[in-house]
Amino acid sequence: MSEQARTTPSPVATQERVREAAVTLFAARGFHGTGIRDLASAAGVSSATLYHYMGTKEDLLVAVMEQALDLLAGEAAAALAACPPDPASRLAALVEVHVRAHALRRRETRVVDDEVRCLTGAARAAVIARRDAYQALWRAVLDDGIAAGTMTAASPATTTRALLELCSGIARWYDPAGPEPLEALVRQYRELVLAAVSAPPPRP
Amino acid sequence: MSEQARTTPSPVATQERVREAAVTLFAARGFHGTGIRDLASAAGVSSATLYHYMGTKEDLLVAVMEQALDLLAGEAAAALAACPPDPASRLAALVEVHVRAHALRRRETRVVDDEVRCLTGAARAAVIARRDAYQALWRAVLDDGIAAGTMTAASPATTTRALLELCSGIARWYDPAGPEPLEALVRQYRELVLAAVSAPPPRP
Repeated sequence: MSEQARTTPSPVATQERVREAAVTLFAARGFHGTGIRDLASAAGVSSATLYHYMGTKEDLLVAVMEQALDLLAGEAAAALAACPPDPASRLAALVEVHVRAHALRRRETRVVDDEVRCLTGAARAAVIARRDAYQALWRAVLDDGIAAGTMTAASPATTTRALLELCSGIARWYDPAGPEPLEALVRQYRELVLAAVSAPPPRP
Repeated sequence: MSEQARTTPSPVATQERVREAAVTLFAARGFHGTGIRDLASAAGVSSATLYHYMGTKEDLLVAVMEQALDLLAGEAAAALAACPPDPASRLAALVEVHVRAHALRRRETRVVDDEVRCLTGAARAAVIARRDAYQALWRAVLDDGIAAGTMTAASPATTTRALLELCSGIARWYDPAGPEPLEALVRQYRELVLAAVSAPPPRP
C-alpha cells in the first residue's frame, strides 16, 4: 500500500466506515437519537465529508435499509432457486434465510424493523416497496401451499406477517455465545413455522 | 370544579400528562431521540416540574415500562384464573391477552419491547425481572402441555420466546381502521400458536 493510500482513504473505504458507524449507532440509539456529529465522529470524518459522501442522515438510513433488504432478498432468491419445488421445502428455505440473517445481522435487521417509522415521503415508499417485495416471496409460497392443500391459513396476509415477526424476533435475543448453536435454533424455527401452517392430514 | 383546581393541576394529573407525553415520544422517537425539554414541552410543564414529579428521563422510562408490564401481567393472571385448566385453553388465553394488549396499547408495548436496550444497572434488572416473570407464565403452560403429551417443543425456552415475538409483532402493523376486526386477528393468532406447538396425535 502506498503512503498516499494510507493517508487518504478511498471514497469506498470512507463510505464503508460511515455505513458501519450508522448501523452501529442507529441500532443502539435509534435514528432520532443519533446526531450527524455522532456519526461523523464514530466514522472518523468531518460532518462535511460525511454529507459529501452520504448525503443527509435520512439518506444514510435509507442506504443502510436498502442494502440490508437487498441482501436478504438476494439470499432468499438464491435459497428458493436451490430448493425442491414443494411449498413446505420452499417455506423452510425462507425461514432458514430469514432466521440466519436476523441472528447474524442483528444491527442491520433491527434498523430495518424498528426505524421505518422515522422515514417519510418517497424514502419511506421506496423502503416499504422493497420490504413488500420480500414479504411477497413468503406470501406466494403460503398461497401455493394453500392451493395444494398442504397448508392452511384463515387470512394468508395476516399469517405471512405473523410468521415473519416470529422469525425476526431472534434479532432481539440471539447471542452467539449462548447455549444453543444457530443450527439448532434454525431447525426449531423451521419446525414451528411449518407446524403453524400445516393443514391437518385428510380424514380417512 | 373550582378556579383553583383548573389553574393548579393536581400532582396526579401532572404525572399522568407527563407519562402520556413520555409514552408518545418514546414510541415515536425512541428514548435517546427524546430530550427532557421535548417531554416537558409536550406535557405542558417546566423541566424542573417534570424532574420534581418523575425524576430523570431513565426513571420515566422505567415507570412507563413497569406500568405496561404490570398491566399485562395482571391481565394474564386474570385470564388464567378464569379459564379451563388444560394447557391448550390456558395458552389460548395468554395469546388473547398478549395480542389484544399489543394491538390496543401499541405505544406502550413498543417502548417495552424496543427500549430495554437503553436501560442499565438496577433499572434494567428490575424491568427484565418483571418481563421474565411474565414470560414464565407462558413457559409454565408450555411445560404443562409437554408433560401432558399434548404439546411439543424441541427447546421450550426458545419456543416461548418465539411465540411471544409472534404475538408481539401485531403492535408493528395493527391498524384499528384496517380490514380485519381485532376479534378475527386474535382468533388467527390463537390458531397459529396452538398449531405451532401441538403434539401430533398418537399413532393408532
